[in-house]
Amino acid sequence: MRRVAVVGSGQTKHGRRDDVSYPELVHEAVAAALEDTGLTLKDIEAIVTGSMPSPMEGVNATHLYWSDGIGAFSKPVLRVATCGSTGMSVAHSAFYHVASGLFDVVLALGAEKMYEGDPQGTMNTVAEPFFQRVFIGGAPTVFALQCNAYIHRYGIPEERIREAAARISVAHHNNALDNPYAHIKVKITVDDVLKSRIISYPLRLLDTCPSSDGACAVIMASEEAARKIAKTPAWIKDVGYCGDEHWFGDADKVRWESAIFAAQRAYKMAKIFDPARELDYAEIYNPFTFQELLYYECFGFCGEGEACSLVERGVIFKEGNLPCDLSGGVLATNPIGASGLIRVAESALQIMGKAGAHQAPRAINTALAHAMGGVDQFNGIMILGREP
Amino acid sequence: MRRVAVVGSGQTKHGRRDDVSYPELVHEAVAAALEDTGLTLKDIEAIVTGSMPSPMEGVNATHLYWSDGIGAFSKPVLRVATCGSTGMSVAHSAFYHVASGLFDVVLALGAEKMYEGDPQGTMNTVAEPFFQRVFIGGAPTVFALQCNAYIHRYGIPEERIREAAARISVAHHNNALDNPYAHIKVKITVDDVLKSRIISYPLRLLDTCPSSDGACAVIMASEEAARKIAKTPAWIKDVGYCGDEHWFGDADKVRWESAIFAAQRAYKMAKIFDPARELDYAEIYNPFTFQELLYYECFGFCGEGEACSLVERGVIFKEGNLPCDLSGGVLATNPIGASGLIRVAESALQIMGKAGAHQAPRAINTALAHAMGGVDQFNGIMILGREP
Repeated sequence: MRRVAVVGSGQTKHGRRDDVSYPELVHEAVAAALEDTGLTLKDIEAIVTGSMPSPMEGVNATHLYWSDGIGAFSKPVLRVATCGSTGMSVAHSAFYHVASGLFDVVLALGAEKMYEGDPQGTMNTVAEPFFQRVFIGGAPTVFALQCNAYIHRYGIPEERIREAAARISVAHHNNALDNPYAHIKVKITVDDVLKSRIISYPLRLLDTCPSSDGACAVIMASEEAARKIAKTPAWIKDVGYCGDEHWFGDADKVRWESAIFAAQRAYKMAKIFDPARELDYAEIYNPFTFQELLYYECFGFCGEGEACSLVERGVIFKEGNLPCDLSGGVLATNPIGASGLIRVAESALQIMGKAGAHQAPRAINTALAHAMGGVDQFNGIMILGREP
Repeated sequence: MRRVAVVGSGQTKHGRRDDVSYPELVHEAVAAALEDTGLTLKDIEAIVTGSMPSPMEGVNATHLYWSDGIGAFSKPVLRVATCGSTGMSVAHSAFYHVASGLFDVVLALGAEKMYEGDPQGTMNTVAEPFFQRVFIGGAPTVFALQCNAYIHRYGIPEERIREAAARISVAHHNNALDNPYAHIKVKITVDDVLKSRIISYPLRLLDTCPSSDGACAVIMASEEAARKIAKTPAWIKDVGYCGDEHWFGDADKVRWESAIFAAQRAYKMAKIFDPARELDYAEIYNPFTFQELLYYECFGFCGEGEACSLVERGVIFKEGNLPCDLSGGVLATNPIGASGLIRVAESALQIMGKAGAHQAPRAINTALAHAMGGVDQFNGIMILGREP
């Protein structure tokens, strides 16, 4: 197979971006990625875009609306939409484009403008209308069910899990302070998390991601092109993506097969046998703190029911052996269609040593980027490395 | 580059399908494709799906709703949405999947259920809301503008163009009578077309595609797998896809660059220098008869302003040198998200000699499949051949 690498990326300042139109917002990310790589639009051979399923922003063909902002004129252009995992699907699709041999330099773009249109109404109507829709009242409710299932699985005292989730919130919000692009920038304590208002039990406000406007652009290139463009390309070692059954109640969402399978596939070609030792970094799609815990277990960072211990030992914090989400993660910034791609961009930044104030203290050789979508169905993973 | 072939396909009976749910509809196409190839769901390594941008059917994540109908459990699954060109984007994406070397057998699926939800409302809101939306009142209006532009470009008497478009309508509707999956089955005359009621001048009812429920599944495979699965695989010789500017008024829609560029790219690797001589067959995305004419010119089947002559000489009819749309085309059947993929499936059927009653009389060695989308922005092409 052809080697493919991330050679650069660009992000907008994420947050409430009433100051720009949607095409202007995406152009901000594209221009930043071009500047990061020293490329121009002429060098881009194809464009893969993604955003949430419409009518999120009230414009149903977002990539058409973006055309002039992304330079789609005269180029192959694609739009993918796989809910929360959209940004990862964009990354995978761009990877396939280059790996196919038809393109050498491809632009991947994910974006969302959540303060236009009716995002909540859109998310409430992703599932079929007869049974699942009435049962699922938007994202927090679905994921609260998953978090409760985790709480009750292993006989671990709820307070211990509650404390671990709160520590994740504090760490991620702290990390966001060091990320110039992050949306929510607040200095908080464990006590703040525990006392914040309940959104959907057990999730409290500070366990919950914000709605963000934002865009992320990542440029991928073939080996020959990558070595010319980037001093330290972040090589894509493998990808894994996994669908699931439609009906929420049919699948175990704690030992979550679609997350486990996606990781196993990605580890296979990347030759990762012991993720806790062989991965140096992870960017996990964590819109709700408790979910982060069950992902650690599904991805093999620890055994079943051991995620709290991983937090308590500090393994997944900045100074730990497997730092996670030093960007502040989805918990601090969630322009949904971009969020999965931001995980790829941030993993690449860590490998390239370009993450600035939120760079991990130790060299990052191998990183895992993840995104999740649907009403708990889709998981996608990309493994990046300093060596091809 | 890795060789990739279409090894089989399946279609639903298209039309008003109130008899099945959406997952049942797509499963009908998937089951037919599996039967056509002798494969089972276990052989499918990844699934690429597509439908119109939501909320077309009122379920915003269609591929999630389809999960159980397409066998997405434990498999990589993608949803693309590029308006009318969706089915072609699905085909291109599935092609990249296999060409990348990561997958040997991939299922491509396009579907639409246009009698659920609000398709017209969805199509009216694909463009940005400030200028273009009020100007564009749905698909017929946009394409009527394009057809009028063609009428006034070359000083050809309108009656001559009108007559050629009507003959295309008659031929396509006749062809549909021979296609067991086609939606509209009526025996009509040129006079019927000329006297049918105006939808948006110059387009009359019989110049206009229907709204259809329907799904199409196409299975693509790597060379090694293809030779095992199919007696006569239809090899994918090349693809071309082209975006455009967002603003309708900024582009020439007669000498339509995005259509011309898409064809030129696809011809390049397929080594087609004189399409009129080297192509044996074409399936063109023609929701409105007049558009078919300008496509003949953009794709190099004839020179500028010569499309009427192509019709008058019968070149593009069943007994001609370059028969087009023997399936009845989009004019007789338009489940939008499937329509582009049906063009690929029908081109492959012609190459394989499996088109039954609508098989071209001469052997088809090289075929062009096309789809178009957006409010006149996107064009995608795939060239298929009997030889790799």
